[in-house]
Amino acid sequence: MERLLIIGGSDAGISAALAARHQDGRREVMMVLADDYPNFSICGLPFYLGGEVADWRHLAHRTRDEIARTGITVRTGVRAEGIDASRRRVEVRSLDGRRESLSYGQLLIATGAESLRPPIAGIDQPGVFLLHSMEDGFAIAQYLQAVRPAAAVIIGAGYIGLELAEAFSRQKMAVTLIEQTEAVLPTIDPDLGRRLEGYLREQGVTVASGTRVEAIEGDSDGLLWVSGSGDFRVQGGIVVVVTGVRPATGLARTAGASLGMRGAIVVDRTMATGVPNIWAAGDCVETWHRLLARPAYLPLGTTAHKQGRVAGINAAGGHAVFAGSVGSQVVKVFDWAVSRTGLRDGEGREGGFNPLTVTLTVPDHKAYYPGSHALTVALTGDRETGLLLGAQMMGHWQGHGAKRIDIVATALYHRMKVAELTDLDLSYTPPFSSPWDPVQMAADAWVAESAKPSASLPV
Amino acid sequence: MERLLIIGGSDAGISAALAARHQDGRREVMMVLADDYPNFSICGLPFYLGGEVADWRHLAHRTRDEIARTGITVRTGVRAEGIDASRRRVEVRSLDGRRESLSYGQLLIATGAESLRPPIAGIDQPGVFLLHSMEDGFAIAQYLQAVRPAAAVIIGAGYIGLELAEAFSRQKMAVTLIEQTEAVLPTIDPDLGRRLEGYLREQGVTVASGTRVEAIEGDSDGLLWVSGSGDFRVQGGIVVVVTGVRPATGLARTAGASLGMRGAIVVDRTMATGVPNIWAAGDCVETWHRLLARPAYLPLGTTAHKQGRVAGINAAGGHAVFAGSVGSQVVKVFDWAVSRTGLRDGEGREGGFNPLTVTLTVPDHKAYYPGSHALTVALTGDRETGLLLGAQMMGHWQGHGAKRIDIVATALYHRMKVAELTDLDLSYTPPFSSPWDPVQMAADAWVAESAKPSASLPV
Repeated sequence: MERLLIIGGSDAGISAALAARHQDGRREVMMVLADDYPNFSICGLPFYLGGEVADWRHLAHRTRDEIARTGITVRTGVRAEGIDASRRRVEVRSLDGRRESLSYGQLLIATGAESLRPPIAGIDQPGVFLLHSMEDGFAIAQYLQAVRPAAAVIIGAGYIGLELAEAFSRQKMAVTLIEQTEAVLPTIDPDLGRRLEGYLREQGVTVASGTRVEAIEGDSDGLLWVSGSGDFRVQGGIVVVVTGVRPATGLARTAGASLGMRGAIVVDRTMATGVPNIWAAGDCVETWHRLLARPAYLPLGTTAHKQGRVAGINAAGGHAVFAGSVGSQVVKVFDWAVSRTGLRDGEGREGGFNPLTVTLTVPDHKAYYPGSHALTVALTGDRETGLLLGAQMMGHWQGHGAKRIDIVATALYHRMKVAELTDLDLSYTPPFSSPWDPVQMAADAWVAESAKPSASLPV
Repeated sequence: MERLLIIGGSDAGISAALAARHQDGRREVMMVLADDYPNFSICGLPFYLGGEVADWRHLAHRTRDEIARTGITVRTGVRAEGIDASRRRVEVRSLDGRRESLSYGQLLIATGAESLRPPIAGIDQPGVFLLHSMEDGFAIAQYLQAVRPAAAVIIGAGYIGLELAEAFSRQKMAVTLIEQTEAVLPTIDPDLGRRLEGYLREQGVTVASGTRVEAIEGDSDGLLWVSGSGDFRVQGGIVVVVTGVRPATGLARTAGASLGMRGAIVVDRTMATGVPNIWAAGDCVETWHRLLARPAYLPLGTTAHKQGRVAGINAAGGHAVFAGSVGSQVVKVFDWAVSRTGLRDGEGREGGFNPLTVTLTVPDHKAYYPGSHALTVALTGDRETGLLLGAQMMGHWQGHGAKRIDIVATALYHRMKVAELTDLDLSYTPPFSSPWDPVQMAADAWVAESAKPSASLPV
């Protein structure tokens, strides 16, 4: 049988491998990965560092044995260095330096992403870390154990930065969280981001948004001084830089694959690269955006799994098409859940829409029943067509914002209009909702606002 | 202006009144109701009886003042006794016996439902209660206060019965819950119902399912003895009978409206009764089932609100169509949420489908993150077409089952196939979900099961 060779052992790789074996049980599937951690949940690393996950081994989605039982051959510590697409071979090098040439019938590039390394002077000194791989996580854990810093500085307040702020707070460190844009979590609107900053401060986190870090300097006491725009200066015993990722495409280039948005590999919706017999999926590729109807760069585990599955089915002779992402994400920040899906105003405008966003804060369930929390729902729709474009939600995690966002994600999949949301037969009992769910209250508010004459003026 | 007269002050009535005023701000809207509690959340009564809601006034969705400010005229303590459709008049009687004839331009019948009164000997004696109206709730509360019974017997283990079992347990009573069908909560599958029984027993509730109550007898100690099939016999200081409701249609009959399924008023999807200028909505009408594409009887607050809104818009000269129910419901039982939407096997079969239900129990979020709970998802689909038919979910309420069911409800609205569910871009972070949400895991399990040769045999 023609071998399916998979480069990369994370979400896209394992999903592809499993799907290919499911599609064709006799297909040889070999997965090679540079590190020693196939099928690990790297999104769990902040929880390992926070102590909520006691043993890093628990981060494995599947054990080596479980993977082996599926009939997939896994080779760890093997770095792919070049692809000869015409001869269908991949040049690899083991940790001990041994080189080898692996043949393939079908090849999947699932090399993922790598940390952005912003131009900060002193970023390479001891005590300063990036966080993307299991090894990055171990390095931080070992450093914390050895140095026991009293204070931590986190550069970048995206999902990982926020999770780290909580993790380090749990480890009794004083935490400073620095964000270059005007508010934390730039994937939500700044007014929501500022509310989140208020909440972070209540939790004891020092937040410095609108701050560009320029340098990190160590002093003789072993402290690291982080300085930046506007005389900003703060110290900590550890600095973690989590300012995003970029696609890891060095290998794909050797095969002649085209690169597109943000340097990610261009693929069609079957996850084909255009180079014969070479597929790609996950954080290294462009992602079809279902609402924009064009590619975007959306490196996410959920998307990587879906793309990997599509690639695996197709590489094994089946037929699957990636349905596209709508940009759903959620992060837990202390006791809050902050979620989003679809397009925000700016994103919608870039996509040719005329967006209106209406924000409403309501109880997550009937206020007369104990334990109700304020849930903020920002709903975005297109003024001209009434089309639902997206939503953002924020509030205590027990207010179900993490899954209420999925009502909207499912609605977006089907291109619903905002006004139609009130037709949905959503479940209700006083402890969990209201007769009109908060999503529907927000829809009503949006419809009312969009009917105002001023709202229909172009912006 | 032509008056919109609304008979009934609960969910359908108030929604219609608000929608009519919104549609046409000059329209006279008068609402008459037999009791004194317009726009109250009667679904909150068990929580009032359980002590979680300290003051019954908090059960008002809106205060009388808030309603008045919308321009709606509310007349309480006014019982409608007859409709003369040809003269467009409603005969009403006030509490003091005074009769009056109210004219209307458009009329909405929103008389709701009334408790079923099963043929149990002794059901009318003191200490035995029904529970549907605010007055029912007050009567029970006063009795509990006066008698302070040590034990309670609940006849009927539907939503209200389950909520009462929790409420009375909170009030330190020993609770026996009796259900005539084979397991509690007959709106979910019996195997799930039996698991719920196990949980209820863990909470100290005595459960007697498969038991038909025949008689209630008082003894000289003031105890009520409830006896039934198979030598069943149990005592309590209070007995509450909550075996369901039937549409309250006495008034509609005087107008010549047609009655259909389970005696409910026949309406079209504009909520018109067919009698000129008379609309009907809420628990007194048949409900259009979106999946069955035929009427059903589904008395629920969510549905009543939606139907009321449609009726109000149309009665005020607008154009709205009821999109239909998919049968979404959720109940909190102690710390569990039990939810359902769509069709179960039997319901699907009656609807002409060839249903297959696959049940899966998985962690609600990544098991490595603290606080994960087992979530049971039963997914039903049509073997022939792969169409999604419904879902049932059960587990700790923090596992988001109350809103995960709404992902399925939204999918049902759009007639998705089961296999398509895995294409949905649902949000993920380890504390709240898995890269494939439990809904998607269940979809995969269903697809695998439906592909087995045996599963395609007709049943």
